Amino acid sequence: MTKVKSPAPETLGPTVCIGEILVEIVATTTGEGFLDEQPFIGPYPSGAPAIFIDQCARMGGTAAMIGAVGQDDFGRANTDRLRADGVDISGVMVDPELPTGTAFVRYRPDGDRNFVFNMWTSAAGSLTWTPEIEAVISRAGHLHIMGTLLVQENIWKMIDRAARTIRERGGTVSLDPNMRSELRADPGIDARIAETVAGADLLLPSGEELYVASGTDPKDGEDTAITRLFELGISEVVIKRGANGSSCHLASGESFTAPAFKIEETDPTGAGDCFGGAYVACRRLGMDVNEALTFANAAGARNATIRGPMEGAGTREQLDAFIAATPRNP
Amino acid sequence: MTKVKSPAPETLGPTVCIGEILVEIVATTTGEGFLDEQPFIGPYPSGAPAIFIDQCARMGGTAAMIGAVGQDDFGRANTDRLRADGVDISGVMVDPELPTGTAFVRYRPDGDRNFVFNMWTSAAGSLTWTPEIEAVISRAGHLHIMGTLLVQENIWKMIDRAARTIRERGGTVSLDPNMRSELRADPGIDARIAETVAGADLLLPSGEELYVASGTDPKDGEDTAITRLFELGISEVVIKRGANGSSCHLASGESFTAPAFKIEETDPTGAGDCFGGAYVACRRLGMDVNEALTFANAAGARNATIRGPMEGAGTREQLDAFIAATPRNP
Repeated sequence: MTKVKSPAPETLGPTVCIGEILVEIVATTTGEGFLDEQPFIGPYPSGAPAIFIDQCARMGGTAAMIGAVGQDDFGRANTDRLRADGVDISGVMVDPELPTGTAFVRYRPDGDRNFVFNMWTSAAGSLTWTPEIEAVISRAGHLHIMGTLLVQENIWKMIDRAARTIRERGGTVSLDPNMRSELRADPGIDARIAETVAGADLLLPSGEELYVASGTDPKDGEDTAITRLFELGISEVVIKRGANGSSCHLASGESFTAPAFKIEETDPTGAGDCFGGAYVACRRLGMDVNEALTFANAAGARNATIRGPMEGAGTREQLDAFIAATPRNP
Repeated sequence: MTKVKSPAPETLGPTVCIGEILVEIVATTTGEGFLDEQPFIGPYPSGAPAIFIDQCARMGGTAAMIGAVGQDDFGRANTDRLRADGVDISGVMVDPELPTGTAFVRYRPDGDRNFVFNMWTSAAGSLTWTPEIEAVISRAGHLHIMGTLLVQENIWKMIDRAARTIRERGGTVSLDPNMRSELRADPGIDARIAETVAGADLLLPSGEELYVASGTDPKDGEDTAITRLFELGISEVVIKRGANGSSCHLASGESFTAPAFKIEETDPTGAGDCFGGAYVACRRLGMDVNEALTFANAAGARNATIRGPMEGAGTREQLDAFIAATPRNP
């Protein structure tokens, strides 16, 4: 089978993302944890896969979400938002018993975050394959995979099944290899990472993830890692570098870089997912790498300036305005 | 078996309450539900059984809680509070997987409340009988039962078992018959209500609950209902009447009334549970009915003046001061 050049065009069908949907409740003071009475603001629609797909749709890509929420206002807040932003939610299941997932988030004085999660013990964890999901997958053109889901057995099986179906019909797969380092203690996981990376067309790593995904030593440098990824069959490697912008490396040998936008960061949660959602949408809409990198940098940066994980996902018009108005880092 | 006069004295062992422990996150604006971004304050330790037992301990009664929390800050907020207030928490289990229960609460403009709950799908629902719980029950002197738990099969079995053990050793049982009316559609529940009422020594109803518990028609009046309860073996019926105070009716034929305190209500959540916790503690400490009613009215009223379901539970000194400073309704 010849690999399709990544990513497959819009005409093949929507970009799909599978995974957790939740609301975030954000502490408005910095401090340690959640033991004491404190102010919050929320609920904010959230979940990395949901943020990705929302940004993808707002950018103008056709997009469909697969996940599960509870029969409560927090679930409706999510489905209302995704629907309003143009995401196909026919694959979002409503669990009759379990509540919508929640994440309480508080920034600590050192910039790290404390969480109280109800994620895989919420509706998000009850997701199973349904005829509605089958229908979405059977007409999809691209699957975006969140690497964090590698260890969620029931979700991972669905992702694996969706990836096979979509590849069989000529679609493509992108992977955010955001696998947490603690996962790597499990030897079975290494094989799963390798298999998933080998099945992807487009990889969107940041930091150490490039080396985790390629299985190379950081000491051997970025070029070694990227070369290894091309050997594995990846067509396109996009590296997110935060304040240092981003770069794209194609298997054809070409490389591109784009500077970051200069912003005042309010809430970085979701910035990486917005970067990915915009990049995949742009490429599938037929834009060249340079244009896609610029929109992706803008989408991530704009989202970080607005409180709430998905609140700053921008439409094409909003991102055009952001790009025109915002200086770049040198 | 001759029924012990309700409630058994402190010397027999602590007052125990079994049931849900959770945190409440309170919307600080009134409105409809939780679809939109809005401010909250919390977490507040909560759960009707936990509020009851906390007030019982703060009043000076010996008190023990049986329930389950998650391994998270919300669980610790609850156990820290109960411990600090003098509650024995050796029967509070920590679930390794499920999160601590949460309740989002928002007052609507009409005074009703909207909720998003994660209650029986949280750690609260995973409670099972353990050696630690056995140890607490085997030295307890009194059990307070929340009628809402009638339909939680796993919890109800534990309550039933605890009631038998405590009665066998000469202890007593009080019942807050706060069974929601929708439960009564299930015919099996009627039998369970009747059995539970018949096994109680002290009943603490409000509003319609008097008639649900006695199985009499509201049209036949309060006296008929109370007489029926005495026939069933109840020794003491305490009726909570909100702004109209409270009354106590003893099987011996005596009746007592106490006026309500005149307050500006901030958050009525938990007021009824504080009333009950204070009343049971006072009676078990040997106070007469009049004094117990006054402390119970004060505990409920004081709690309603302070935001948060358990925040206004008063110590004996705080309630003495409240009683001295607060006018009564006519």
